[in-house]
Amino acid sequence: MTPGRFIAFEGGEGAGKSTQARLLAETLRARGIDVVMTREPGGTPGAEAIRALLLGTEGEGWNPRAEALLFAAARSDHVERLIRPALAAGQWVVCDRFVDSSRAYQGGGGGLSDVDILALHAIGSEGLLPDLTVLIAVSPEVAAERLARRDGGQADRIEGRGAAYHQRVAEAFARLAEAEPARFARIDGDGGKDATHARVLAAIARLAGPA
Amino acid sequence: MTPGRFIAFEGGEGAGKSTQARLLAETLRARGIDVVMTREPGGTPGAEAIRALLLGTEGEGWNPRAEALLFAAARSDHVERLIRPALAAGQWVVCDRFVDSSRAYQGGGGGLSDVDILALHAIGSEGLLPDLTVLIAVSPEVAAERLARRDGGQADRIEGRGAAYHQRVAEAFARLAEAEPARFARIDGDGGKDATHARVLAAIARLAGPA
Repeated sequence: MTPGRFIAFEGGEGAGKSTQARLLAETLRARGIDVVMTREPGGTPGAEAIRALLLGTEGEGWNPRAEALLFAAARSDHVERLIRPALAAGQWVVCDRFVDSSRAYQGGGGGLSDVDILALHAIGSEGLLPDLTVLIAVSPEVAAERLARRDGGQADRIEGRGAAYHQRVAEAFARLAEAEPARFARIDGDGGKDATHARVLAAIARLAGPA
Repeated sequence: MTPGRFIAFEGGEGAGKSTQARLLAETLRARGIDVVMTREPGGTPGAEAIRALLLGTEGEGWNPRAEALLFAAARSDHVERLIRPALAAGQWVVCDRFVDSSRAYQGGGGGLSDVDILALHAIGSEGLLPDLTVLIAVSPEVAAERLARRDGGQADRIEGRGAAYHQRVAEAFARLAEAEPARFARIDGDGGKDATHARVLAAIARLAGPA
């Protein structure tokens, strides 16, 4: 059994991560690959229950340390119950957000140290990292326009934080991608979704395997 | 303003912690001390929501690492929103369970290392420790008899674990108390509640202050 591949999509709000993750899963499936499509926070019943605590706009909210602990707890459940078993069974896992979101949001945005966030990930999930992390980078103008067009309207607790917070998140993502070029592919997401998808496909060619 | 004192009660299921914490709070109040009585997991709305995830018997349960992360998240909220402000305002905080329960249950019972549990506590709550930790130790027979007499019947997710798990918890508590004699008071809880309360009062005499 060949172990599967683990691909995570990262980026700020309105970058088009979920769309690109879905398009990639469809293309891989058309190539005959068995793909598990999932997301964070969430992906398992336990982690989805934690997601509701994290993103719901009721209650008083969480300090950045409690928030990081809750994300790490959800990720621990998700990794143990879904991601590791899928990879062990030879499936490819395409995940909308993973640990780099904690590093960018609770770290860059919330002020926790990267050492602390990686310590939580080591304890919770034995430090599992994706084989490839696709960072979709868009200009603030494009992100704002896409968010304005979304159905439903209401921002969740993290989306609703101010522009300065989201600017720190974007800068943190850029630093992470620069520091780990072998794991990250930084993709320009300002264009149309098909153009971006083509760039994603070029980036995953670096993963050895039947794709 | 004199800072308050922080007293935690620890022990296994059926040890009488909650009863002794309440009796101590009553005695301290009768002495004119402003006491905040609280419990873990819980004590704040956010932490009580996490408690429901931890102890509810629906769903699939949590691996020991996710469980430890959830306890640390609940504790972070509790420390930041209730315990530290109360201590800063000169109140005494009497808490039914604190970090030593994580060390005994997720550590001794669940197999996490003490280093990892203390790392989570350092990240979540800056490593806050009680001024005094009262460990109520009872024989397994007494604990079993008290649990059988409880109203409500249904055990929560952690109470419902087997005897071997709870034996490891008891041994871990004993080791913790032995390793930190200046912070721990180990109290025999096999007798009646008034006899145990008298021993608790003798133990808290070591705390300097108006009590």
